[in-house]
Amino acid sequence: MYDRRKIKDIKTNLFHVPLRESLSDAKHGTHTFFELITVTVCLEDGSEGTGYTYTGGVGGRAIYDMVEYDLKPILIGKDGDKVEALWDEMNWKVHYVARGGIASFAISAVDIALWDIRCKNANLPLWKMVGGVNDSTKAYYGGIDLAFSQEKLLDNIKNQLAKGHTAVKIKLGKETLQEDIERVAAVRELLGPEKVFMVDANYSWSVEKAIKAVKALEPYDILWLEEPTIPCDFKGYARIADHSNIGIAMGENLHTIYEHRHAMEIGKVSFIQPDASNIGGITGWIKVAHMAEGFNIPVCTHGMQELHVSLLSGIPNAGYLEVHSFPIDEYTMRPLVLKNGRAISPDVSGTGVEFDWKKLSQYKIEM
Amino acid sequence: MYDRRKIKDIKTNLFHVPLRESLSDAKHGTHTFFELITVTVCLEDGSEGTGYTYTGGVGGRAIYDMVEYDLKPILIGKDGDKVEALWDEMNWKVHYVARGGIASFAISAVDIALWDIRCKNANLPLWKMVGGVNDSTKAYYGGIDLAFSQEKLLDNIKNQLAKGHTAVKIKLGKETLQEDIERVAAVRELLGPEKVFMVDANYSWSVEKAIKAVKALEPYDILWLEEPTIPCDFKGYARIADHSNIGIAMGENLHTIYEHRHAMEIGKVSFIQPDASNIGGITGWIKVAHMAEGFNIPVCTHGMQELHVSLLSGIPNAGYLEVHSFPIDEYTMRPLVLKNGRAISPDVSGTGVEFDWKKLSQYKIEM
Repeated sequence: MYDRRKIKDIKTNLFHVPLRESLSDAKHGTHTFFELITVTVCLEDGSEGTGYTYTGGVGGRAIYDMVEYDLKPILIGKDGDKVEALWDEMNWKVHYVARGGIASFAISAVDIALWDIRCKNANLPLWKMVGGVNDSTKAYYGGIDLAFSQEKLLDNIKNQLAKGHTAVKIKLGKETLQEDIERVAAVRELLGPEKVFMVDANYSWSVEKAIKAVKALEPYDILWLEEPTIPCDFKGYARIADHSNIGIAMGENLHTIYEHRHAMEIGKVSFIQPDASNIGGITGWIKVAHMAEGFNIPVCTHGMQELHVSLLSGIPNAGYLEVHSFPIDEYTMRPLVLKNGRAISPDVSGTGVEFDWKKLSQYKIEM
Repeated sequence: MYDRRKIKDIKTNLFHVPLRESLSDAKHGTHTFFELITVTVCLEDGSEGTGYTYTGGVGGRAIYDMVEYDLKPILIGKDGDKVEALWDEMNWKVHYVARGGIASFAISAVDIALWDIRCKNANLPLWKMVGGVNDSTKAYYGGIDLAFSQEKLLDNIKNQLAKGHTAVKIKLGKETLQEDIERVAAVRELLGPEKVFMVDANYSWSVEKAIKAVKALEPYDILWLEEPTIPCDFKGYARIADHSNIGIAMGENLHTIYEHRHAMEIGKVSFIQPDASNIGGITGWIKVAHMAEGFNIPVCTHGMQELHVSLLSGIPNAGYLEVHSFPIDEYTMRPLVLKNGRAISPDVSGTGVEFDWKKLSQYKIEM
């Protein structure tokens, strides 16, 4: 009977989706579009699931090719219900050219498709499939707003508060620390004392400058300082954390479970931010979430809010869901639902992320 | 005048080169071919250089795509003499999908092409361009021989000794440690007490098993134990090193300069083994070699002997050159030259690696 659960086909698509306006941070430069790579896995019995990953505009074709030429050949004919075993097999197959990078994105897209099938097969929504602790989760708006004037920065936040957000994050990394602190002061004044406020330097600082920055940020009741310096320098993170009474956060650039361990064990972060689109999908994300539980660290997320809402809802050590400025959810049948500062998990079988293929079709790249 | 040194074009090729026989190690399974990705960079003034990278059979198309679609667009029109600046620029461009993985291979191929141009422009061989400490370097034969019977293992080593090798490495990771040790004992007996002997477990062991293994290996005068456990577990490496009076080695799976730092600083390795084909080319390799000098650690290499011979020759902290079983050098105009156990650097302008395009053409993959 298990033969009917074998993987019959895998369909991969690449889309270049334009952003409504150009968005800038300290290190990635200006984004004008994002890449969306979707993977649909079909089993012999007609079951179907769709997964995906995204990038800021670079690497999409490489991800597509790795799914098509390196992963698909080893997946066809395998039992689609053995999700974690397939995750292992994919990781070992590409190991020499992987351990992060493009491979983590490619494996993520396949793995999320397999979880979609798993949830549908069990007739369960994702938030229950991964634990069912809750059906909603705390959320914050994450702006990519470094290039915004102070006036535009504040207007943008007002708009987000009007939409129901009660927590916001802004980008730091202006020419001088003084400019950054002026923006932080203005935003805190706008927010008042109750609302939650995070900041993100996108690793634009040296360790020395970051240590100065945490001192200067102290008066503004900041929940976390994200990526003060390059994500590879775990001991540098520890030096910053040793000087800071603001929690340090990282994760979007950590693409293996081991890097997440290093961040928690060596880097002394207070918040860990895995992204299912680049940590090996839901399987990789869950492993990091469980490890973080052992480290007594809350899990937050980066990007992909339409999927992460269910993952964070389901686990006991949930921190904050980032509502990212890449609006993937606008190309799905159910854009993110926000109520009283919390994001609500879709309550349907599967991951709850069903793409609006008609809307997406105009952005498809022919491969 | 500098306009004439701008990058005019970049040509990328992918080849699937068959191996004479299937080769197996403990974790990568069986290799029947290797992928060779070549990148030729042309400047406005007609200067031309060729770089390359290779894989064990996976990821070649993704590497090709990243060069063609992500790196080439930012390189065209740039000053081809600013080699390290371009390395930085490439790394930042792809950072979010990089920090190792496919990107490190893609950047390597481009960077080696730029170094080929740099050397030719200076009318210098690579061994002088990177320091000129020596024009030859100690070498060893690295077998991918885990699946060989003991008889075939010994015959193979006899052949290599006859070719002039005075140092050899074999694979470990058989079903039981007892089998491994029997093979080690037989090889040491064949070699006699003078010849240098290394072993490589291709991260097939737990930390616990590796600690048992170093004790069992002690009587056989082993220069190094390579990759006893997974390359991500730097603290695990330290635990093994703390129990071992055999030096621990790693590097072929470390694809950023930071991972190499972690291996030396946290992992307590005694030998570091960067591979210019996956550490970001000659620029990445030199950065690791200089860092290793500061760590008082000799640099060895993995694969790509026809290029690494010049890099190791040129630096003061050279360890051993691996003469790898992927015979890329057989597809160049100057296969590796060995004399009295030392490999001799090519003494021509450029990297000294000039491909035999006619011989390679039959293996070209149409993209």
